[in-house]
Amino acid sequence: MWGINAGVYSVYKRVGKEVGISSMARWLVILAGGRGERFWPLSRIMHPKQFLTLIGDKSMLESTRERVGSLIDDAHTFVVTGIDYVEKVSGNLPGIPSEQILGEPRGCNTAPSIGWASEIIYRRDPKAVILVLPSDHVIQNGERFSRLVDHAMTLAGVHGGFYTFGIIPTHPETGYGYIERDGVAFPGTQALDVKRFVEKPPREVAEEMVASGRFFWNSGMFVFRAKELLQALRQFLPGLSDGIASLVESPDNAAEIFAELPAVSVDHGVMEKARKVYVLPADIGWDDVGTFGALARLLPRDGEQNAAHGYAVFVESENVTAISDGPLVSFVGVKDLYVVATQDAVLILSPDKSQDVRKVVQALKEAGNYEHLL
Amino acid sequence: MWGINAGVYSVYKRVGKEVGISSMARWLVILAGGRGERFWPLSRIMHPKQFLTLIGDKSMLESTRERVGSLIDDAHTFVVTGIDYVEKVSGNLPGIPSEQILGEPRGCNTAPSIGWASEIIYRRDPKAVILVLPSDHVIQNGERFSRLVDHAMTLAGVHGGFYTFGIIPTHPETGYGYIERDGVAFPGTQALDVKRFVEKPPREVAEEMVASGRFFWNSGMFVFRAKELLQALRQFLPGLSDGIASLVESPDNAAEIFAELPAVSVDHGVMEKARKVYVLPADIGWDDVGTFGALARLLPRDGEQNAAHGYAVFVESENVTAISDGPLVSFVGVKDLYVVATQDAVLILSPDKSQDVRKVVQALKEAGNYEHLL
Repeated sequence: MWGINAGVYSVYKRVGKEVGISSMARWLVILAGGRGERFWPLSRIMHPKQFLTLIGDKSMLESTRERVGSLIDDAHTFVVTGIDYVEKVSGNLPGIPSEQILGEPRGCNTAPSIGWASEIIYRRDPKAVILVLPSDHVIQNGERFSRLVDHAMTLAGVHGGFYTFGIIPTHPETGYGYIERDGVAFPGTQALDVKRFVEKPPREVAEEMVASGRFFWNSGMFVFRAKELLQALRQFLPGLSDGIASLVESPDNAAEIFAELPAVSVDHGVMEKARKVYVLPADIGWDDVGTFGALARLLPRDGEQNAAHGYAVFVESENVTAISDGPLVSFVGVKDLYVVATQDAVLILSPDKSQDVRKVVQALKEAGNYEHLL
Repeated sequence: MWGINAGVYSVYKRVGKEVGISSMARWLVILAGGRGERFWPLSRIMHPKQFLTLIGDKSMLESTRERVGSLIDDAHTFVVTGIDYVEKVSGNLPGIPSEQILGEPRGCNTAPSIGWASEIIYRRDPKAVILVLPSDHVIQNGERFSRLVDHAMTLAGVHGGFYTFGIIPTHPETGYGYIERDGVAFPGTQALDVKRFVEKPPREVAEEMVASGRFFWNSGMFVFRAKELLQALRQFLPGLSDGIASLVESPDNAAEIFAELPAVSVDHGVMEKARKVYVLPADIGWDDVGTFGALARLLPRDGEQNAAHGYAVFVESENVTAISDGPLVSFVGVKDLYVVATQDAVLILSPDKSQDVRKVVQALKEAGNYEHLL
């Protein structure tokens, strides 16, 4: 539907060279602050999803970094994470200079995270074009994604504006935000004008949007010039803008400054309000792997529709998904189950209850059982 | 149906005193050689069922010993087990003299085990009356059982013969042997003549037997005089009888001697052939806990019919049995499952597949995975 045309990029690359875009450095900001409970017991408060090895043999964070490794080097990469995770990030991505791993004293959603990193980058490189990536998504077609990022960064350099990556919806998901497209933004490119953003919709609305063919899922990935992002923050979120300036000037006061920052998403705080917002259709095998159900869909299955991440033995069982970070998981005569096993906790889940893992986490919190949460 | 009448015992106790029975020492032989695979992953080759804490807070073996603690002291207790388990038995039952824990170089069914212990006991105490108990059964009414054992040992002292304990069948179980009763053996006692033993029957035969009201399950517990058991072995299993004599005289040759012993059960090798075989109806809450299904039936359930042995969290789940020797086990939106969890292996089982745990064990053996079997 939205095939990628390599020819378009090469035109823009030539244009870029002509107008000096190649001198415009590309920067990467990875958002790694998630404290997701939806992957308990695999994820724990001290070991959230971005550090898990859910697909392949690398953590989600490592895979995120690698995916654009050919476009942006470590010296131009920032990671924004929780202060408690700085060391873990550093261990996952040892090539990134330690001062570029920013530890937030508290989670304040994405606008503060992106603003903080953008401010630092801008002060080093006023012409910076920034790619923002969440650290816990899967992208199966990495090469196509990489070409699309290249395209978006070139466009941001040439035209300015805010670029989002629109995932072609496969079902009326109520857990994502949507982006409505308008016409072609720049003839001969993949960029479309954005008509509006829609926050997580009710089911009927989601169904209508998907049926219309005019909506994409908002993947939470962005490309923009640092300068424009900071201008938008100044315009739409002046308190945040001030806070970020203080943060960069007095990093020792981070705890006090963060305590005052508004917890707002960059989608809601900036993208929905800004002019010049674009969407690039991204047919890249994206998945935010937000639940065990999403992970189960990504795993290869055998003839009985069983799937395993880790060591599993299936006897007379079907449509079972086993996910283990250590224990052997075995099944006799069961079907339609998700099972997640760690050394100290096991979760057995009906496939239609993937969203309800938090209820167990909640029960453990109420019982004061932090042994199995941390 | 088979109520226990305390008055009967006291008559026999008086009789016993009159004829000098009280001088006849009582001995206990516990059979702890099981290598059951039906409780994998809780049980392992090196940690079979008799050492598990399936009910309460004591191992099956400890509970077995305690159950008759008021009748027979440690100095008169023998345990026959696999040579690899001698140390474990000793740890479970530290009061038993170490020379009374007999380690078999290979498992040869019950006749050799019982014969070996009986021979040693007989040489110490020619008048010994012996109680034989499997080490991995549950008896919920321990007091009634203890009174019944007392009764049986008194009867053996007075009348001689072989006493079995007949469990009143609750369903046409095909996994047990059956005992058919005949008339009352000794007026005023609970003992009935045994008409015949029936080995594990097909379903239809089991149904007929249960319907007839004349059959008991064979619980594998026996009472007899050491002398009579040894005479019966000499008569029915002369090769075994010779082997046991050599064993007691040259214990250093145990490996060679065991290699030659016939692997035969005492039921088949002795009880089915002997005269003077009796059965005492035993309404004692007996269960051989042969499968996870049997264990599940013994666990208390909540309002949603969930049961846990270990730490479990149930969310919107019903008729789930969780058995853990460590890990927390949690459930969301599932029903009709058995789950067994250890640190390194998890089993998820349909309740009607309780007999098929061995299929997983078999698969692991075929895969050469002894890490999860030992």
